[in-house]
Amino acid sequence: MRKVAVIGIGQTVVSEHWEKSLKELAGDAILNALMDAHINEFDSLFIGNMMSASANQQQNIGAYIADWVGARGSESIRVESACSSGSAAFRAAVLAVASNEVDIAVAAAVEKMTDSPSTEITANLATAADADWEVSQGVSFVSLNALLMQRYLYEYGWDHSSFAGFSINAHKNALNNPYARFKSTLSEEQYARSPVICDPITLMDASPIGDGAAAVILVPYNSVEIYGNHKIVSVAGSAAASDTIAVHSRKDPLWLSAAERSAKQAYNQAGITERDIDLFEYHDAFTIMAALSLEACGFADRGKAPNLALEGELQLSGRVPVATMGGLKARGHPVGATGVAQVVELVWQLRNEAGEHQVEGATKGFSLNFGGFGNNVLAFVLRREG
Amino acid sequence: MRKVAVIGIGQTVVSEHWEKSLKELAGDAILNALMDAHINEFDSLFIGNMMSASANQQQNIGAYIADWVGARGSESIRVESACSSGSAAFRAAVLAVASNEVDIAVAAAVEKMTDSPSTEITANLATAADADWEVSQGVSFVSLNALLMQRYLYEYGWDHSSFAGFSINAHKNALNNPYARFKSTLSEEQYARSPVICDPITLMDASPIGDGAAAVILVPYNSVEIYGNHKIVSVAGSAAASDTIAVHSRKDPLWLSAAERSAKQAYNQAGITERDIDLFEYHDAFTIMAALSLEACGFADRGKAPNLALEGELQLSGRVPVATMGGLKARGHPVGATGVAQVVELVWQLRNEAGEHQVEGATKGFSLNFGGFGNNVLAFVLRREG
Repeated sequence: MRKVAVIGIGQTVVSEHWEKSLKELAGDAILNALMDAHINEFDSLFIGNMMSASANQQQNIGAYIADWVGARGSESIRVESACSSGSAAFRAAVLAVASNEVDIAVAAAVEKMTDSPSTEITANLATAADADWEVSQGVSFVSLNALLMQRYLYEYGWDHSSFAGFSINAHKNALNNPYARFKSTLSEEQYARSPVICDPITLMDASPIGDGAAAVILVPYNSVEIYGNHKIVSVAGSAAASDTIAVHSRKDPLWLSAAERSAKQAYNQAGITERDIDLFEYHDAFTIMAALSLEACGFADRGKAPNLALEGELQLSGRVPVATMGGLKARGHPVGATGVAQVVELVWQLRNEAGEHQVEGATKGFSLNFGGFGNNVLAFVLRREG
Repeated sequence: MRKVAVIGIGQTVVSEHWEKSLKELAGDAILNALMDAHINEFDSLFIGNMMSASANQQQNIGAYIADWVGARGSESIRVESACSSGSAAFRAAVLAVASNEVDIAVAAAVEKMTDSPSTEITANLATAADADWEVSQGVSFVSLNALLMQRYLYEYGWDHSSFAGFSINAHKNALNNPYARFKSTLSEEQYARSPVICDPITLMDASPIGDGAAAVILVPYNSVEIYGNHKIVSVAGSAAASDTIAVHSRKDPLWLSAAERSAKQAYNQAGITERDIDLFEYHDAFTIMAALSLEACGFADRGKAPNLALEGELQLSGRVPVATMGGLKARGHPVGATGVAQVVELVWQLRNEAGEHQVEGATKGFSLNFGGFGNNVLAFVLRREG
């Protein structure tokens, strides 16, 4: 496999971008990434997106966006795996460059959710669950996460307040990320007083929807000298794994087997263990997912993840800095775009250019992105070279 | 790039499969392909599908289908480029195996269109056109094709009856394909009397919607001895190209530049010209698309494609056998599934196992699949080895 490097990154602020169309939003991120890489052409465009068909009445958005950014003629396809669509597009681009068939690939991702009524978006999000056996029972992603969090509290003896640290940390990091949606700190008291959405989940356990886009430029590692003046960041590990789509089919709903499987595979490819990782962009769509991710990926023992938050180990200066971009919780979660935003954050950090939210001396970053209820998981290890 | 071979094929009949869910339909094709390849496990699943979100209220169908076919744990993503989604999934699988990262990949594709009212399906199909500039004017794919066919008749001096041969040939071939939707011959008189849908397009110029699935198994070429007792078919050329999404942005709407570009690239990779091709599965969603494809891919001079039909050159025994499976016109067009069905047909033919619709002695096959209005085109050359 030909080794692959990231030579350009771009992103938009996560917000309610009512004044921009889907293609304009994607185009902004792609053009930023091209400028960052000092190039103006590419061979192939891989677009991650979940819900453009239903939320924006537009499919075939590979061609739609390639056309808009002036890349008429180029290969341009969309990749979808619900909320991990961005990561799936990144992986498709990595494989394309690794295969020797494509020399410059763009992995971009976009989601535009705030033009639709929120009930419609909730229904759209639920199409990532099992339509036959879950959604037909009235399940939504909030209710699934609430059931799981309830179970976690019961099995391991925690109470709700123990999860405050995940959200407080995310909001703190977002304060220093100019692309984050929320720019406000969160106190323990605010967390405790936050309104319940679906018991035990409160508003401050849940990530917000939003509009946003992100993009990266990929080239063969052996060609990076041609392009840039950035520190070189390579894709050291790339893996994907699935789990049962319906949560009730799992032997142990508190164990995210696809997260474990993809993380281990990515670590192995990179020749590292979780102890070598300097920052971890996890999928904190809900605080319970943050906790379960830390456990599945080896950062905490089963049932012990809240300790990491309580002991301050998740902060920028801690043992496992997480959600450095503000996480899905505070940077925002434009669902299909999140996976590429995580990769952008890793590259930014590994270049040592993340400014106020920089993890000092980071050389290895890890991202984990969930599609559906942990059933379509992608994991990447990125490394600063030299 | 690691050379890739197809070692298994599977497909379902194209029909109105009201008794089967989306996953059952996809599963039937995948399990057939696995049996054909004599394997029961794989690493990665790439699913081509256009409209499951809107027509079946299910996204994330990679994981949904992997789970159903007993491949829990495997990588599983969906690829979408409107009506070329199947080919885009096939290409993603080719790149994955070529990259050395994946050893056994399944490219499958499925579409289930007949559960929804046809007006809704027409609207879903239109999401492949430009929502901002075309669909907002009331454009549908039938009306776009009608405008183009009108222009073709005007520019080149043909009349509508000259297009009869494309549809007659497709129906004749479908008679001998057990997986085809329509099992009826078509006469010139029937073609001439067919009701107009959108002038000058009649019912017999247009392919029907339908439900169907198809799947192929891909492995590295150097491992084929391990697997099978089939004649070996390799992927000799694989290319993708785009055009402007809105037809009005094209300098010459009668020239399908993405078809030309992807075809040339696939020929070059395979080291052949169009003269070496023994059969051509084209995208005859409408007869005008059949004609323009033959011209863009070098089989006919500009404005001359109807001659090939009139002179019998498109039949199984002709110079350029096309639509040997019955084409989209008579085999049926379950949109996202069509690209993989074309590849299945090529493999079937190149193995010399296509029975009554066999092209004698075929060793090189070519497929061309359109997403949107010729704006997201994929082209493949498959070759029998040895």
